[in-house]
Amino acid sequence: MKGTAAPDALTRKAINTIKFLAVDAIGKANSGHPGLPLGAADLTFLLWSRYLRFNPKDPLWPDRDRFVLSAGHGSALLYALLHLAGYDLSLDELKQFRQWGSRTPGHPEFGHTAGVEVTTGPLGQGVANAVGIALGRDLMAARYNAPGRPLYSHRVYCLAGDGCLMEGISHEAASLAGHLGLSNLTVIYDDNLTTLSGPTQVVETDDVCERFEALGWATQRVDGYDLAAVERSLDWALAEPKRPQLIAARTILGHGAPRVGGTFKAHGEPLDAADVAGLRQALGWPAETFVVPPEVHALFAARVADLQKEYATWQELRAAFEKAEPEKAVEWKARIQGTVPATLFDDVRPKTPSHEKDEATRSLAGDIEQLVAARVPALVGGSADLDPSTKTFLKGSPIVASADFSGRNLELGVREHAMGAVCVGLAATGGFIPFGATFLVFSDYMRPPIRLAALSKLRAVFVFTHDSVLLGEDGPTHQPVEQLAALRLIPNLHVFRPADLVECAAAWTHAVSRADGPTAIVLSRQKVPPLPRPATFDAKVTQRGGYVVVAKDAPTVCLLATGSEVGVMVEVGKRLDAAGQQAQVVSLPCLEIFAAQDRAYRASVLPQGVRRVSLEAGRTDGWYRWVGDRGLALGVDRFGASAPDKILAEQYGLTAPLVATRVTEWLAT
Amino acid sequence: MKGTAAPDALTRKAINTIKFLAVDAIGKANSGHPGLPLGAADLTFLLWSRYLRFNPKDPLWPDRDRFVLSAGHGSALLYALLHLAGYDLSLDELKQFRQWGSRTPGHPEFGHTAGVEVTTGPLGQGVANAVGIALGRDLMAARYNAPGRPLYSHRVYCLAGDGCLMEGISHEAASLAGHLGLSNLTVIYDDNLTTLSGPTQVVETDDVCERFEALGWATQRVDGYDLAAVERSLDWALAEPKRPQLIAARTILGHGAPRVGGTFKAHGEPLDAADVAGLRQALGWPAETFVVPPEVHALFAARVADLQKEYATWQELRAAFEKAEPEKAVEWKARIQGTVPATLFDDVRPKTPSHEKDEATRSLAGDIEQLVAARVPALVGGSADLDPSTKTFLKGSPIVASADFSGRNLELGVREHAMGAVCVGLAATGGFIPFGATFLVFSDYMRPPIRLAALSKLRAVFVFTHDSVLLGEDGPTHQPVEQLAALRLIPNLHVFRPADLVECAAAWTHAVSRADGPTAIVLSRQKVPPLPRPATFDAKVTQRGGYVVVAKDAPTVCLLATGSEVGVMVEVGKRLDAAGQQAQVVSLPCLEIFAAQDRAYRASVLPQGVRRVSLEAGRTDGWYRWVGDRGLALGVDRFGASAPDKILAEQYGLTAPLVATRVTEWLAT
Repeated sequence: MKGTAAPDALTRKAINTIKFLAVDAIGKANSGHPGLPLGAADLTFLLWSRYLRFNPKDPLWPDRDRFVLSAGHGSALLYALLHLAGYDLSLDELKQFRQWGSRTPGHPEFGHTAGVEVTTGPLGQGVANAVGIALGRDLMAARYNAPGRPLYSHRVYCLAGDGCLMEGISHEAASLAGHLGLSNLTVIYDDNLTTLSGPTQVVETDDVCERFEALGWATQRVDGYDLAAVERSLDWALAEPKRPQLIAARTILGHGAPRVGGTFKAHGEPLDAADVAGLRQALGWPAETFVVPPEVHALFAARVADLQKEYATWQELRAAFEKAEPEKAVEWKARIQGTVPATLFDDVRPKTPSHEKDEATRSLAGDIEQLVAARVPALVGGSADLDPSTKTFLKGSPIVASADFSGRNLELGVREHAMGAVCVGLAATGGFIPFGATFLVFSDYMRPPIRLAALSKLRAVFVFTHDSVLLGEDGPTHQPVEQLAALRLIPNLHVFRPADLVECAAAWTHAVSRADGPTAIVLSRQKVPPLPRPATFDAKVTQRGGYVVVAKDAPTVCLLATGSEVGVMVEVGKRLDAAGQQAQVVSLPCLEIFAAQDRAYRASVLPQGVRRVSLEAGRTDGWYRWVGDRGLALGVDRFGASAPDKILAEQYGLTAPLVATRVTEWLAT
Repeated sequence: MKGTAAPDALTRKAINTIKFLAVDAIGKANSGHPGLPLGAADLTFLLWSRYLRFNPKDPLWPDRDRFVLSAGHGSALLYALLHLAGYDLSLDELKQFRQWGSRTPGHPEFGHTAGVEVTTGPLGQGVANAVGIALGRDLMAARYNAPGRPLYSHRVYCLAGDGCLMEGISHEAASLAGHLGLSNLTVIYDDNLTTLSGPTQVVETDDVCERFEALGWATQRVDGYDLAAVERSLDWALAEPKRPQLIAARTILGHGAPRVGGTFKAHGEPLDAADVAGLRQALGWPAETFVVPPEVHALFAARVADLQKEYATWQELRAAFEKAEPEKAVEWKARIQGTVPATLFDDVRPKTPSHEKDEATRSLAGDIEQLVAARVPALVGGSADLDPSTKTFLKGSPIVASADFSGRNLELGVREHAMGAVCVGLAATGGFIPFGATFLVFSDYMRPPIRLAALSKLRAVFVFTHDSVLLGEDGPTHQPVEQLAALRLIPNLHVFRPADLVECAAAWTHAVSRADGPTAIVLSRQKVPPLPRPATFDAKVTQRGGYVVVAKDAPTVCLLATGSEVGVMVEVGKRLDAAGQQAQVVSLPCLEIFAAQDRAYRASVLPQGVRRVSLEAGRTDGWYRWVGDRGLALGVDRFGASAPDKILAEQYGLTAPLVATRVTEWLAT
């Protein structure tokens, strides 16, 4: 749907409308970032009015084109565009920019504002999310397109600033996109030569186009204010058959602001009165704020009407698909709706009380993952080049490659940060439950996307193995101490640390079934014993986040543990019982879920007035909430060391005999 | 000190000695990574025997060349080289590879093994550390070299693998190195086409040389086994006047291992007996393990003897420097020894009881930083493109640039991860106390280097501003909730969150004076009130990590807070007192330091048996240790929102009236 982009009077008026809606919103809030909206209004208008395919009445249309504002601080630009394009975002919302309860927060938030594809602001994330979305598009096309039936034919446009491209995550993601040949991804680089604090030349002299070429991208430079040239670039991007495209558009930060335009002062603060007045005068705009000329409304209305035809055509494709391949269509619909079998836990849990011989939880979880994958086609993912160690490779499915997107296994390279953000992008795309795996210690490389998945309430699964000092000889650089507790601090992230095969089934079932946020599954490298299960054991209890493994009628002490330490505590309990105690042993595979159980249930697991001890091979800080300041929290509060795990268990006091001794001494105090 | 590098018999024997010391160490430990030592022994032998300038008897010689093994999993190679080069690392230590208490841990650890320049293993970090070390070299040269007196003329060599170069941090650091024209940095890329899990082509198709050229580097490709060609490349690198250099050396992972050589199977597991036997046979090596032929010892001894001459020449330069510029030489010596004025706290603290009018702690800390910088020339640093907001720019000093290294202000770009690792490199160089600044929420982008600074016991300062939801309109993507608690989890990192000007002085003094690890200083964007100070107030008490701000003879409740919440708790205390309570108010600017105080002092601050309430605008998880499970921990356990800070304070229950009400209700229970 393209025509000539000569900047006629109406085009100019529409662009000015966008500029002043942003300037007025920022001015009213007395807070925000006018530089990008003023600089990029021209090219984003062209993109939205002539290229982007969308339906404001069906914001989640699976085959819509995506627009990702990686430079999320330019949110006022996006909100102006969403309003004009007919999304459910009124002028009143624009007038509430950055205010409590509005749908126009400081940075765009996925799920909070219709038409916002991902939550952006932390720089570089949006570029990597866009790579994930573009990957999802090719994965979907490989599964559900048929000759003459292009159910998935959309494109992903991403607007990025110099900050986005300086961040390492954008390099990781760009390298992956080039490797996979994601030709439906177009990144527009708002190349304004200006950072938050000065000219970019003070901090960077990259040849950005050359380095993207080196990553397998097609690149072009264009004057961001020559709309005919920008149109030619966007047409060139549409025609590129094999490579993702970077369009470096030369723009001016705060374009047109008489005093601060072209300087860093236009980046992050409202224009002052003189600049606003000067801008209005220069562009011949009325003094009145939040003005939208009727002809500009009409322009966008006409565009939306045109797009309705494409939307209707797509609905025909969908109907044809459902008619031709009803079973496949049912699977597809379930994926889009994010439904998984209600019976999943019973389908994948072992019929044995626990696992049968000592085994690493990474292996037990890997076995469960295969069973889940067979029942949940939406599950796709991979590791940051650690498959042999993380045990997450999906058997019987090929590795996704530029020549073949039919597989479910992603090889993400040693790029943890991009892996996390690609998972966010896939989850935001719809139809995917992505997982990303690495060693727990390297979760530190990918906290920003984990956080954004949690903030965006996206269903993503993060698998972290080698979960304590007990991984052994690799030493302190590879031994997590603080990471488990640090993950638990991220709001709305559920952290599972299963202790046996049944708990692994509970963890994976929860992770793929949960519709309102991500789950981390934390697993051991070393082997753990099966857990004793009473005849009355109901496996479902493991889904409550915490439960009694060894019950006592009148416990004298409560032994709390997670993951590989639960088996140790069972042994500790036996030793304490032999010394006359009544030791109740509690497994707490997911503290967030346990904390959400009703008080009565929690009290049945952790009886009031009974002294408590926790054992977890990591930082103890978070455990005082559960054992109390007069309780005993045992763990690892210093860095690890390089040695075999048996030696480390002795040195760090993590063996049953050493723990039993500690607890006995403490009970005597 | 170069000659011809024809692979004569002795050279071959020396290379084989390195290979088998590594293979034997890994075999004896039955753990480790033989692939890199076998693949890179040839070129590292050439580097160490003909180029690297060092003195094993003075491992910290300020002008030594540095060798950074970014691919830290190849530690056995480094240990073999250190042993042969005469460092204090015996064959017995090699035989204790990866064992408890040895000086040969799984990955190289700075400060633990003489000759190890930085702690590596987490991929990509070493490359960025090397950039920091090379930057430090140029900063030192600009300060202390004089015509004819090149006190600093060393080079930095870094051996990196494909994993290192895939990680975003290496891109960030390479971009910075190219921008600054760090021509004394040579990165040797062990280009073996093989990752941990398969051929690199499965995960990456970058043109690595082209992308480094785009970042302003000089690049060359070379056959890693053609020693004459490698020598030409190293000579070419030495001759490059302006740009850092990348030498892409084509090698074979596990070179020579008959069965696994050239495959990923050689990466991370000991060779099996057949491969070891085959390798011995192919290279004509005896069956005996840990063999070092006397002529190989002699070869390295001769090299070390040659280098003694360069070392002696440098000592003459140093003597000339001390003679010519005695005052400057004293400053230099103090920097090298890491001494700072013992009177620093009294020198920089305000003579007023607190600050005098409401002010943001970022501004108060910024004022103190200027005073510290005037007294501590070792202090250099910068921000991740946030100077105007972090208030960390050192007044009166230029920005470091490729044309001028005389300044103290680093402009690091939007590259938090590299910023952290550059600080690690500068601290490891000696003579620097580096600082890096950004918003607290973005500490998530740089946790790996913060962790490595703590593990390596390096004196680095991380300044994090905008430290809570109260930063306001930027919204949840920019509002830290979990980051403060997450930083406190990193062992050996001291986290200061000062509440007023005096506490800012205590924080900065501690940060630059502490010799055994890094410090994070966490600061507010919003203004905070001065604190009430009794006539008896001794400012030094703020250095104890926690102290009583408002004392009561018989307190009925203890109010704990940090940073911007201390002033709020003072108000809460007044309200509670008015309602008949005796509220003692406690400020805890650094929990790690307070926890290390003697029991009596801690009890004087937090009297036993008095109910406790904590208030901190972040996650409460860690506070139960201090208030107890029957205590009240108030904070922010969910994500923030976009709104003015006053509104957020109301909505999140962080105002004095709301807190006082909560506490009153709780005290009644």
